[in-house]
Amino acid sequence: MSKKLIKREDDYSKWYNDLVVKADLAENSGVRGCMVIKPYGFAIWEKMQAELDRMFKETGHENAYFPLFVPKSLFEAEEKNAEGFAKECAVVTHYRLQNDPDNKGKLRVDPEAKLEEELVVRPTSEAIIWNTYKGWVQSYRDLPILVNQWANVVRWEMRTRLFLRTAEFLWQEGHTAHATKQEAIAEAEQMQRVYADFAENFMAMPVIKGVKSESERFAGADETYTIEALMQDGKALQAGTSHFLGQNFAKAFDVKFTSKEGKQEHVWATSWGVSTRLIGGLIMTHSDDNGLVLPPKLAPIQVVIVPIHKTEEQLDMISEKANEIIKGLRAKGISVKFDHRTTHKPGWKFAEYELKGVPVRIAMGPRDMENGTLEIARRDTLEKQSMAQEGIVEHIEKLLEEIQENLYTKAVNYRNEHITEVNSFDEFKEVIENKGGFVSAHWDGSIETEEKIQELTKATIRCIPLSFKEEDGVCIFSGKPSKKRVLFAKAY
Amino acid sequence: MSKKLIKREDDYSKWYNDLVVKADLAENSGVRGCMVIKPYGFAIWEKMQAELDRMFKETGHENAYFPLFVPKSLFEAEEKNAEGFAKECAVVTHYRLQNDPDNKGKLRVDPEAKLEEELVVRPTSEAIIWNTYKGWVQSYRDLPILVNQWANVVRWEMRTRLFLRTAEFLWQEGHTAHATKQEAIAEAEQMQRVYADFAENFMAMPVIKGVKSESERFAGADETYTIEALMQDGKALQAGTSHFLGQNFAKAFDVKFTSKEGKQEHVWATSWGVSTRLIGGLIMTHSDDNGLVLPPKLAPIQVVIVPIHKTEEQLDMISEKANEIIKGLRAKGISVKFDHRTTHKPGWKFAEYELKGVPVRIAMGPRDMENGTLEIARRDTLEKQSMAQEGIVEHIEKLLEEIQENLYTKAVNYRNEHITEVNSFDEFKEVIENKGGFVSAHWDGSIETEEKIQELTKATIRCIPLSFKEEDGVCIFSGKPSKKRVLFAKAY
Repeated sequence: MSKKLIKREDDYSKWYNDLVVKADLAENSGVRGCMVIKPYGFAIWEKMQAELDRMFKETGHENAYFPLFVPKSLFEAEEKNAEGFAKECAVVTHYRLQNDPDNKGKLRVDPEAKLEEELVVRPTSEAIIWNTYKGWVQSYRDLPILVNQWANVVRWEMRTRLFLRTAEFLWQEGHTAHATKQEAIAEAEQMQRVYADFAENFMAMPVIKGVKSESERFAGADETYTIEALMQDGKALQAGTSHFLGQNFAKAFDVKFTSKEGKQEHVWATSWGVSTRLIGGLIMTHSDDNGLVLPPKLAPIQVVIVPIHKTEEQLDMISEKANEIIKGLRAKGISVKFDHRTTHKPGWKFAEYELKGVPVRIAMGPRDMENGTLEIARRDTLEKQSMAQEGIVEHIEKLLEEIQENLYTKAVNYRNEHITEVNSFDEFKEVIENKGGFVSAHWDGSIETEEKIQELTKATIRCIPLSFKEEDGVCIFSGKPSKKRVLFAKAY
Repeated sequence: MSKKLIKREDDYSKWYNDLVVKADLAENSGVRGCMVIKPYGFAIWEKMQAELDRMFKETGHENAYFPLFVPKSLFEAEEKNAEGFAKECAVVTHYRLQNDPDNKGKLRVDPEAKLEEELVVRPTSEAIIWNTYKGWVQSYRDLPILVNQWANVVRWEMRTRLFLRTAEFLWQEGHTAHATKQEAIAEAEQMQRVYADFAENFMAMPVIKGVKSESERFAGADETYTIEALMQDGKALQAGTSHFLGQNFAKAFDVKFTSKEGKQEHVWATSWGVSTRLIGGLIMTHSDDNGLVLPPKLAPIQVVIVPIHKTEEQLDMISEKANEIIKGLRAKGISVKFDHRTTHKPGWKFAEYELKGVPVRIAMGPRDMENGTLEIARRDTLEKQSMAQEGIVEHIEKLLEEIQENLYTKAVNYRNEHITEVNSFDEFKEVIENKGGFVSAHWDGSIETEEKIQELTKATIRCIPLSFKEEDGVCIFSGKPSKKRVLFAKAY
């Protein structure tokens, strides 16, 4: 298989798919819409998980695990939530297979083993979790409950794309219970900030914090807080959401507590999640026509060392020096791979690690050994430089920080250049069609206008930014008065 | 709810269930046979995962993720494996719910949304993984594949018990592919050693390494390596298994490679797994009538400090000292909780942490402040002692090691006292019935004898120990000649 990618400008969508497969991140499986996350892709997810998990624990959350299956009667308890997910859920109806009498060696569903009540494979866990919380909460002393779960979920998506939209995906879902509305809202807002912090400081992916319009809200939420990122093709990506669920689930599952004042009250709820979709966002924020570009903080391998040699003796000399550098790097917590395989040529290895987005590559040959030098290449700018071996560990430490910053700066510049204020629907269409990115426009606040705009342009309201300033204007579509601009974009 | 447990000798099974629920480890859910793992129980699992994951990576394995669903046609490809799991699997047949026209507000399965091919919720992932490996392997250069997956699996068990046997459970499953039989066997044996190391050195749970008899083998394996532990009630627990799968899956999924010599050969396979069942084993190995007893290496909280005070001022003084100790402990990587809640009395807290198995408890009151002392209690022996505050950090560090060792020694003594050699079937029955534990007996090697013994005594062959010594004898049941003793026991 050729490792060469199509150019982004020729076919962004194909470039993305090729990259995911050729960089060994993931591939489609034998199951419709479900992906296999390969070791290199999974290593990125593990890095993400470790940071997020730390951030969740630092904000007082604990992990737990709830069942994969939701009995239909629980699933339908919160009506809006049920309605939102009913159309795309995998349903278990039987619990046994048997030998097919008409087809030797084959199995069939045993008609005798039909479940009395169907089980829905969780598309999200509010229902099963609130049914559980009912048993955990009696008094205000039992609150808050601050629980997170790392899990797989299934949504029967019709059009799937690796990482971005798959029938099964991995995610975390936080589910918290509170005594007051205020506290629940503060929690939902806090988790939006945690997600934004993670996206910007680890993924080097700038995001806009905002709230969703009513029609884009999570099914069952009173408010959905979102972080929205912008991909290189001008399309937006919803990267994480945090929901204030009001008392909707507490009411549906009858979860009450006795307040300090001795009154029975319904509990207030939030839920919040990010998923393996983030890996798609990471790829599309930084990568280029040569392959993956990874921010050092999430790169499974931060530095790779490739020896260039003809003889065993040369390799021994290079290895000795390399091992010294490796020791120095590891002592600073920098992950490094020494690829001294003799089955592959240096040129092949260079292309491979470029494709896989390793932030820093070092090459060392016999002449370098004589001169006390090495060649260092950075993946983000593709610059190569000959340098002294001395002090290289400190240099790399700084370089990794520099690369992390550079990726963020590049992404934030691109994003900022792609937020366009428009004041008419013609302008709106022109920008959405040709320039792409976020369009900041006045909107009359009605679902009808939102739908109409989507119908005509495929753009949706990504969010009402938290940072909006009040401003008198008129809706670009209906001409009705408006107090603030919202952000539209075509989105993944 | 009373926190008091029934005594083990009165009802071991009820004691176990009570303990799991009252120590906040897990509970039954609204879904038949599926458990909720509560934060405290999950924290133990996280500790286990962290150590195991490190051990897997140190032995060269990487993590990946494969689909939850196995299409029926893949599931049935390896016949023995399919036969072994067909009777207990959850089957997805539909991908949509719809409003029930006869029942307002209710949902029903949409008959139009029937899947063309049913999907089995993975009971284990050999089928889906070997179908994937087919695309990964062409040449001997692509081997070995050393992959592990942390995942949930579902087996429709009829009689379930928290942690020990649940319809859904969490586990890890390693799946490796090799160029030679020898290498695959070495891998399966290595992972058995890794499991034994983990069980003994982290769980403080002694295990016997052996191989399974043919009838107890994993469905689809040529050899199953097992580690077998002994619980306090004299029943054995299979704690982890590692399978040499031969070329069975490679043949079923047509996975071939070109050898160095240019020949097409089928790949050799292993798989190996441990699950949340280990938590059940941990509980039943160490805990007592007062509650959970945890080995320090897996305790989510290793030390708890409880202040005893009447006034705010006293609490301030105690807190100052406690914070000093906490700082010292944390610097040594020891986890410590300072429970200064004023909503609960010290006595309540003592009982709570005893129930939850925190290895070391420190209590400090006003008199301790005057005398520079504190009270230290160890959970394993329930001994309490007044000690000088000075040097307490170093003392605790040693004490935690001592507790870890003491738990192992106690368990290994109990286990060794419960391996009984017998030479007749009468003796066999007598020991199985009254003393319990492992019974070491000659067996003629036939499935018929094995089945007959199980029918008559409920004891099964737990393993043929790796450490057996050849010895002439006669089968205790059939009187036929035998070359070695095997271990029988009643088992979980």
